[in-house]
Amino acid sequence: MKINKDYLNLSENYLFSEIASRVKKYSAEHPDKEIIRLGIGDVTKPLATPIMDALEKAVFEMGKKETFRGYAPDRGYEFLRNAIADVDYRKRGCEISPDEIFVSDGAKSDCGNIQEIFDKDNVVAVTDPVYPVYADTNVMAGRKIVYMPCTKDNGFVPELPAEKVDILYLCFPNNPTGAVITKENLQKFVDYARKNDSVIIYDAAYEAYITEPGIPHSIYECEGAREVAIELHSFSKNAGFTGLRLGYAVVPKALVKEGVSLNALWARRHATKYNGAPYIVQRAGEAVYSMEGMKAVQKQVQEYMENATLIRNALTDMGYEVYGGVNAPYIWLKVPGEMGSWEFFDLLLNKANVVGTPGEGFGKCGEGYFRLTAFGDKNDTIRAMQRLKEL
Amino acid sequence: MKINKDYLNLSENYLFSEIASRVKKYSAEHPDKEIIRLGIGDVTKPLATPIMDALEKAVFEMGKKETFRGYAPDRGYEFLRNAIADVDYRKRGCEISPDEIFVSDGAKSDCGNIQEIFDKDNVVAVTDPVYPVYADTNVMAGRKIVYMPCTKDNGFVPELPAEKVDILYLCFPNNPTGAVITKENLQKFVDYARKNDSVIIYDAAYEAYITEPGIPHSIYECEGAREVAIELHSFSKNAGFTGLRLGYAVVPKALVKEGVSLNALWARRHATKYNGAPYIVQRAGEAVYSMEGMKAVQKQVQEYMENATLIRNALTDMGYEVYGGVNAPYIWLKVPGEMGSWEFFDLLLNKANVVGTPGEGFGKCGEGYFRLTAFGDKNDTIRAMQRLKEL
Repeated sequence: MKINKDYLNLSENYLFSEIASRVKKYSAEHPDKEIIRLGIGDVTKPLATPIMDALEKAVFEMGKKETFRGYAPDRGYEFLRNAIADVDYRKRGCEISPDEIFVSDGAKSDCGNIQEIFDKDNVVAVTDPVYPVYADTNVMAGRKIVYMPCTKDNGFVPELPAEKVDILYLCFPNNPTGAVITKENLQKFVDYARKNDSVIIYDAAYEAYITEPGIPHSIYECEGAREVAIELHSFSKNAGFTGLRLGYAVVPKALVKEGVSLNALWARRHATKYNGAPYIVQRAGEAVYSMEGMKAVQKQVQEYMENATLIRNALTDMGYEVYGGVNAPYIWLKVPGEMGSWEFFDLLLNKANVVGTPGEGFGKCGEGYFRLTAFGDKNDTIRAMQRLKEL
Repeated sequence: MKINKDYLNLSENYLFSEIASRVKKYSAEHPDKEIIRLGIGDVTKPLATPIMDALEKAVFEMGKKETFRGYAPDRGYEFLRNAIADVDYRKRGCEISPDEIFVSDGAKSDCGNIQEIFDKDNVVAVTDPVYPVYADTNVMAGRKIVYMPCTKDNGFVPELPAEKVDILYLCFPNNPTGAVITKENLQKFVDYARKNDSVIIYDAAYEAYITEPGIPHSIYECEGAREVAIELHSFSKNAGFTGLRLGYAVVPKALVKEGVSLNALWARRHATKYNGAPYIVQRAGEAVYSMEGMKAVQKQVQEYMENATLIRNALTDMGYEVYGGVNAPYIWLKVPGEMGSWEFFDLLLNKANVVGTPGEGFGKCGEGYFRLTAFGDKNDTIRAMQRLKEL
């Protein structure tokens, strides 16, 4: 009996588990201290009324024999896949059909699981800094990873890989840096993938936070992307589903490698290892696409973006070097002086009782940086900035 | 770019997807026919009142800022893990602590994912017939599988493997045969695993259906099982959560292989690739362990078991050879004459408009057998038996 030794190449804890455990320890030792959490990207606003209405109605159905629902269809209910195809794609001029959409319990699961349909010997490229799930799950599978540095010199948008890579993970608006990519630059990645027979895993979890025109909301806005890209979406950040769990993956039928349809492979994976998102949550997800739902979630996004502006301005006033927060709910700040990012984490936790995320947790190029999120309560965010000012 | 070619060793469709697609096709061609589904093991009773109450209360909390819940703790909420540890283990005399319990979105996911923490080169033993997830997910990972035949000669309880195997999947009460294992026989498997440094994945999804005394409800009733066994549980069949999605895995801290804690490995997997079951569903799960909840779900189980008895008796009267249905919601019947099990599936679908599951879909030894489930509506079940009689 042998364990999967690739796991031993990981750091002991998943980044956000490590942060949670440090905060828990500090709290236990200082029960009198009130901690403001701008670390993990968790939302704080309650579900909007149109979503609550849909959720309550669906729950009611589960209590009646005539309307009770058991196992969901493999790929998700059609009512939800149709709404996604219509609003997120057709209305943006992207050609994605409902049977190219796979509903899941969240983008984190999809990010983590998608690598399974690829051979172990592919070379994977991720940005540095990076959302740890892309890298960790490929380490777990024993794949070779190359890093695409994202620094202030390239505006936190990676260069095309110098060597040939097989799988590229891209996330825009970016977690953690808050950077965005222009359509022109994204097209270069699509062209690279077409030329090199690569696949792009495009994480669009934060697309609802784009405020400026000309920034692509979907990779399928680029020409030829249907033949090279898988796109992942979350309901967590745009609609407050972190605690409800819902997401979806798009695997176009035009995406064929070695003569095999990746849509069919992912369908086989989905059907075999997963049993669908809860009916009640899929109904809540459908409500996100209603007129009232869209209005309500846009309002929440705007309110979170007011926090982002507030953090940006306060930090700038304090003399910090600040990135992100314009088309993304994340603010990426340069840690002052020569301080390490975990050192800054401890300083903020201990002296200001504010939790952020150390840049080093996202990769070597994150060292010297720090991530704050705009998902806090507005008053807490103001108070957190006050505490930083008094440091 | 290479795909995972191990997927090409699978049948094209997951068994239950294949059945769903055949039924859909028949329905489309015969819109006037009313089909009775006793194929996929999906429940038909609405959620019981105590569970509905808990679910509604939790949904209400999601709409208020003060009580809204975002990301769940990695391993699940303590309120649920404490209830599980207490009712499912402590009260049965098994020593399992809450931090050995990992809440998930269902036993199917856990069944499918658990193999990831093991090396590719382990030899896996599964029964034949077998719930396809154990086998398919190991095929996807490229592992060698050996089959332990379960036939009427051994009462559908496998012999110990003749060769040394590293991982054994056992499911009792069994899906699909409905067979159970005595504590004495289960102890032999635990002893085998201890002697051979193997790990047992014990799927206890149907334990609530045990009606006879002396049949173990948990593998941890066996001596030394904490050092060799992982146990998987579902809320689908005992409490009607097929559409809500909830399950849990037990990975004891005493389970250490090559000096590494499997509890720690699974924790790392859980935290990295998964983001927890919805808060509202975990609250519904907690209600299953309340006094009212336990009473309500036991009543549902009894009612389903009345269907099982009804099917058993009707089939026996018709002269079928029938197994299972006493401690399990599945009836395993011998297909009449020399007919193949897919042939019998088509006959039942076309002539009686009744859907079952062909034994061959569960493995070679399932050929010539057929599975019916007790999860249908009572009247539908009676009518299905009437239709079979008239065949």
